[in-house]
Amino acid sequence: MAESFRAGLISGTGEEGLGIALRLAAAGHTLALGSRSAERARQKALEINQQLGEEKIQGMDNHELVASCEMLFLTVPFIHAEKVIGEYQQDFSEDQILVDVTVPMVFDKGPRLLELGGKSGAEHLQSLLPEGPTVVGAFKTLSSHSLCDIDSPLDCDEFVCSDSPPAKERVLEVVSQIPSLRWIDAGPLRYSRSLEAITLLEIGLNRRYKVKGSRVQVVGL
Amino acid sequence: MAESFRAGLISGTGEEGLGIALRLAAAGHTLALGSRSAERARQKALEINQQLGEEKIQGMDNHELVASCEMLFLTVPFIHAEKVIGEYQQDFSEDQILVDVTVPMVFDKGPRLLELGGKSGAEHLQSLLPEGPTVVGAFKTLSSHSLCDIDSPLDCDEFVCSDSPPAKERVLEVVSQIPSLRWIDAGPLRYSRSLEAITLLEIGLNRRYKVKGSRVQVVGL
Repeated sequence: MAESFRAGLISGTGEEGLGIALRLAAAGHTLALGSRSAERARQKALEINQQLGEEKIQGMDNHELVASCEMLFLTVPFIHAEKVIGEYQQDFSEDQILVDVTVPMVFDKGPRLLELGGKSGAEHLQSLLPEGPTVVGAFKTLSSHSLCDIDSPLDCDEFVCSDSPPAKERVLEVVSQIPSLRWIDAGPLRYSRSLEAITLLEIGLNRRYKVKGSRVQVVGL
Repeated sequence: MAESFRAGLISGTGEEGLGIALRLAAAGHTLALGSRSAERARQKALEINQQLGEEKIQGMDNHELVASCEMLFLTVPFIHAEKVIGEYQQDFSEDQILVDVTVPMVFDKGPRLLELGGKSGAEHLQSLLPEGPTVVGAFKTLSSHSLCDIDSPLDCDEFVCSDSPPAKERVLEVVSQIPSLRWIDAGPLRYSRSLEAITLLEIGLNRRYKVKGSRVQVVGL
């Protein structure tokens, strides 16, 4: 292994991956960006580095990424999350962290949350990984549109939740360097259900109010 | 009937009822306050009027209240909502509006949303009232603590949702006069599920951050 990274994005070449990569890199982090195709990941990394004007992202194959990162951001849509986890399950180690940013949603005359036996998407993914890594929910309520619009300050709150307080702390160390974003500890993983429901509300508001990046802020903390 | 009211609170003598009555009365509305016991309702109304320093609330028996109000705020805890609806169902008329402020929640090592077959509490209550009144969800995400603290501006957003846009409009005409509170149209009644999930998050945050009135604001609208 040539290099190890604090954080990487598995299958991170989509819009949500791009947004998180941009915000974390702009905050000073060096990141790994993965794809099933190393070539595709390298191409995407090159584009992001060009946009940033510095060499912050390194593209690689997902397997190599999982082997070289302490913290793995899962930025695929929820419907693909289970498959991606299955594909790389053998590569995970139990002391790694899987940062779940997905929202279990379908579109049927507007967005609807998937029924997962009363569980949040994050709890569902954790149940697929009984031996680790530890799942931390984060970036659930920020749209890729807001994240990618790197010249606009976010000026809102974002939430982190996990059943492991140390894992939550490790994620906060990385993400809290993004400027103009306050991180709120939403508690155990089951609160992810509230965060996922907020995203649903935001998508509805974006449509109803004809905006692209509605997001939330907690008053009174 | 001696008098008719734009808005009244069925079984409104609890904390949430008190908070909504205070805020609406302070915004200029004259309201009816109901209880199973007319005497208890009159006593509570007297206390609120004394706190406000003017005669804005009139206490009465729930049956009289249902017969004399255009808009009925249901401010009991969700676990009692079904019973209250059953008790006064014969008194409702289809052109009335039932403003549901309840959150279907139980406490089991922290707050948890009740499973209602994938439905929100508001949709569940509407399903019990197939012939009306029309259910409008509102005041779901504001705690009684914040509402009752009448000398503190709310400085946040609150949401209204319903499958009937005209019913939503009629509620907005009344509630939008509360100062320092922005009302957001959250869309159809099914978005009540997101609002109820926000309340759950707020209760968790209140405990974790040792505050009493966390509430939300939408950024980017």
